Amino acid sequence: MADCIFCKIIAKEIPSNVVYENAHTFAFLDITPIQPGHALVIPKQHYTDLFDAPENLMQELITTAKKIATAIKQATGCDGVNIGMNNGAAAGQAVLHAHMHVIPRNKDDGLRHWPGQKLSSEEMAEMQRKIQARL
Amino acid sequence: MADCIFCKIIAKEIPSNVVYENAHTFAFLDITPIQPGHALVIPKQHYTDLFDAPENLMQELITTAKKIATAIKQATGCDGVNIGMNNGAAAGQAVLHAHMHVIPRNKDDGLRHWPGQKLSSEEMAEMQRKIQARL
Repeated sequence: MADCIFCKIIAKEIPSNVVYENAHTFAFLDITPIQPGHALVIPKQHYTDLFDAPENLMQELITTAKKIATAIKQATGCDGVNIGMNNGAAAGQAVLHAHMHVIPRNKDDGLRHWPGQKLSSEEMAEMQRKIQARL
Repeated sequence: MADCIFCKIIAKEIPSNVVYENAHTFAFLDITPIQPGHALVIPKQHYTDLFDAPENLMQELITTAKKIATAIKQATGCDGVNIGMNNGAAAGQAVLHAHMHVIPRNKDDGLRHWPGQKLSSEEMAEMQRKIQARL
């Protein structure tokens, strides 16, 4: 898509540190890594997010993410890996071309996870019904 | 697996707010949601994480996550959705049965994302080589 920075990276119009590509997916290092080795896995065809991308392409993305995560774990010697996909600006998606983050993690790296909250059993059951009604 | 809380939830030995299940995957509300509607998608068969779970099962997980995310977006009216998979205790994985988080997000919900850092082009190229060497 014109004016999409990730489409330009795929087309090699903008340089990047490519680590892998196959017929439908492309992986490169995040330019501002949360941890060294942080990579992005994207579809070669432009889709906005998880909602927009077809099911089979999402399957290709997670397959590449698994492959890349394994290589990153070996290359960095990290203790764990986060896979993350932010869908929508409100969810922290900065570039509106679907992408999965692959982030190496280490014990005591200082990155904190979001806190959970406790809802009542009635609130949980109501939410369950609302979601089930859409499935 | 004995002593796995998620295996017990799948077996209905421990109650949960189930929202969806099919042949190989199972989805239920997180008991301490980051946001109301926060759900977990897990494989019915016990695997530890992304590294342990086979490729085709990861494809089933992301397919269910996409389906659930769409239903959660409709049910909650949220502005965006995070998909997250923590692999390894160092990555924030609390239950060692592979799971994807599906988290509804709203503008100004106050949840902050981890900051990025800038590495030198030499450091980026060295990391690229190290990862490529494992692929």
